Amino acid sequence: MGHDMLMVGVDGGGTGTRAVLTTPDGRCLGYGVAGRGNPISAGVESAAAAVLTAVRSATASAGCRLSDVSVIVAAQAGQPASGEGADSLRDLLRSAGFGGTVRFESDLLATYFSGTADDSGYAVVSGTGACAIRVVGGRIVATADGLGWLLGDRGSGFWIGQRVAKAAIRDLDGAGRSTALTRDLLEHLDIAPEARRGDGRPRALEQLVGVLYGMPPIELASFAPLAFRSADDPVASGILRRAGEHLADSLSAVLVGPGPLVVGGGVLFRPGPVREAFVRRLGDAAAGLELRAVEDGAVGAGLLAVRAGGHPATTATLDRLAGTVARVR
Amino acid sequence: MGHDMLMVGVDGGGTGTRAVLTTPDGRCLGYGVAGRGNPISAGVESAAAAVLTAVRSATASAGCRLSDVSVIVAAQAGQPASGEGADSLRDLLRSAGFGGTVRFESDLLATYFSGTADDSGYAVVSGTGACAIRVVGGRIVATADGLGWLLGDRGSGFWIGQRVAKAAIRDLDGAGRSTALTRDLLEHLDIAPEARRGDGRPRALEQLVGVLYGMPPIELASFAPLAFRSADDPVASGILRRAGEHLADSLSAVLVGPGPLVVGGGVLFRPGPVREAFVRRLGDAAAGLELRAVEDGAVGAGLLAVRAGGHPATTATLDRLAGTVARVR
Repeated sequence: MGHDMLMVGVDGGGTGTRAVLTTPDGRCLGYGVAGRGNPISAGVESAAAAVLTAVRSATASAGCRLSDVSVIVAAQAGQPASGEGADSLRDLLRSAGFGGTVRFESDLLATYFSGTADDSGYAVVSGTGACAIRVVGGRIVATADGLGWLLGDRGSGFWIGQRVAKAAIRDLDGAGRSTALTRDLLEHLDIAPEARRGDGRPRALEQLVGVLYGMPPIELASFAPLAFRSADDPVASGILRRAGEHLADSLSAVLVGPGPLVVGGGVLFRPGPVREAFVRRLGDAAAGLELRAVEDGAVGAGLLAVRAGGHPATTATLDRLAGTVARVR
Repeated sequence: MGHDMLMVGVDGGGTGTRAVLTTPDGRCLGYGVAGRGNPISAGVESAAAAVLTAVRSATASAGCRLSDVSVIVAAQAGQPASGEGADSLRDLLRSAGFGGTVRFESDLLATYFSGTADDSGYAVVSGTGACAIRVVGGRIVATADGLGWLLGDRGSGFWIGQRVAKAAIRDLDGAGRSTALTRDLLEHLDIAPEARRGDGRPRALEQLVGVLYGMPPIELASFAPLAFRSADDPVASGILRRAGEHLADSLSAVLVGPGPLVVGGGVLFRPGPVREAFVRRLGDAAAGLELRAVEDGAVGAGLLAVRAGGHPATTATLDRLAGTVARVR
């Protein structure tokens, strides 16, 4: 296979990195995964190393070499085309034998193009963080939220997980509603629900607070699945409903008319209470949006790579990519 | 003055430490201040050093020595009578020439006894953090909240300051209500409100987010005064009202009947929108509570020291302490 006929798209996310080796018409020939590929949360060096690992694994699985690839598109959070992170990744790929072009894109755009080949529309991504974008002419022209766990990311996995922790704590503290989340969280963290100590508080509360403050704050996101598992608990379902409403409000801030709407990330990918509340909150605006749910940005990174290689990124290309990626992973 | 006739009460807080040198009947003879005296936030060594500095300053201002003091009560957050922190402070005072008894108390109890000599009642303290306690027989028998910035402290200075930052960010992001807090916060942080960049967001938003994530999270508490200064702005007044309601809910969780209610800390000390919302939310329960506002735990630490010295801590003693402390500081 000729040198100019292979491209790799890489979706570098906060929890994992995915690389798709594709032909110009969207046949996925190889697929590779690696660890955390978000330069902001994982660090520049570590994210670059993850991209290389995923790319190598994708080429190896197709029985070809890095030097056979003409274009690599790295879709990563907060990754500008110039600067330390970009230079670091370019150098690393170069020294590994890659002689082609490296392009940088937003991971949000990769998620968007996982769901549509239309160059104008919307995406709402809710994983650990949460963000809404408007895309026009293949570029992001408006963004809402995505402002991090301390100040924004409303409706994200962190947002849900923090509320799970707070609900359990208020329940144990006797200041909030009783909820199944308390038992679930204590069990999840291997803390025994126990007797009271001197000032009238359960020992489990003291232990829970100690454990939670011992974790990096962002890891509260790991409790989000507890809310989904107890979705019939009124407190849990209230949290999930509010998450969906927040995500709809973020979308509304960038919404100007109808178009494809790609929803992705762990919180929105599967149908369920968050997605239902999201659509309900959008109200009439939902009628003009064609909703497509995608798992991540792997397919879209592949499509961005096809486009960066100078080939048409059509709906047929996207469908072929989605189908062939699904087969190999 | 005889060795057994002088006591020192120390209120070691998150922003400063106050020492009161008192006679058994509550005449404050000396007063000293020092830096942060909370062993949890300032560190054990640093908090112990602040206590010693404040005690020395109090004795020096009265023209006496550390060896003239019979009892020192250290009222500090999360300071148990045994353990590293206590040992560290005992050793430090001993090596500085103190030959008497060291007792440890909660800083919340010191705030409580700044407002009443009654050995049963309630306190709600909202400074950087927020907590409600029920006191019976001079001991804390129930506690609500005080669970830290990430998981609790509802209605605290941090809680207010974080909401100020979030409100400004949502306003700049076009996803929230327009508020005077945006201009105030940008001005406070010396960020120019500016033009738009490529993806449609104001540059000021990008800069603000960068500055805020560069600070330790707890320092968001420093923005709380912006809400008080713009209390006629609907967004700011909404934040302050909710803070008061949260503090009332924490109190309700420990409330079992009438009694004195001491309110303290920067958020509740002065009359204003938080205090008003707090009282309104308490509803009928407020009728049975005698509300007394105190600035900090200095006077109460003095009263705890009188009691620890084996002397009666009566209302007359408290009144004398409050009056004489007010004169020297």
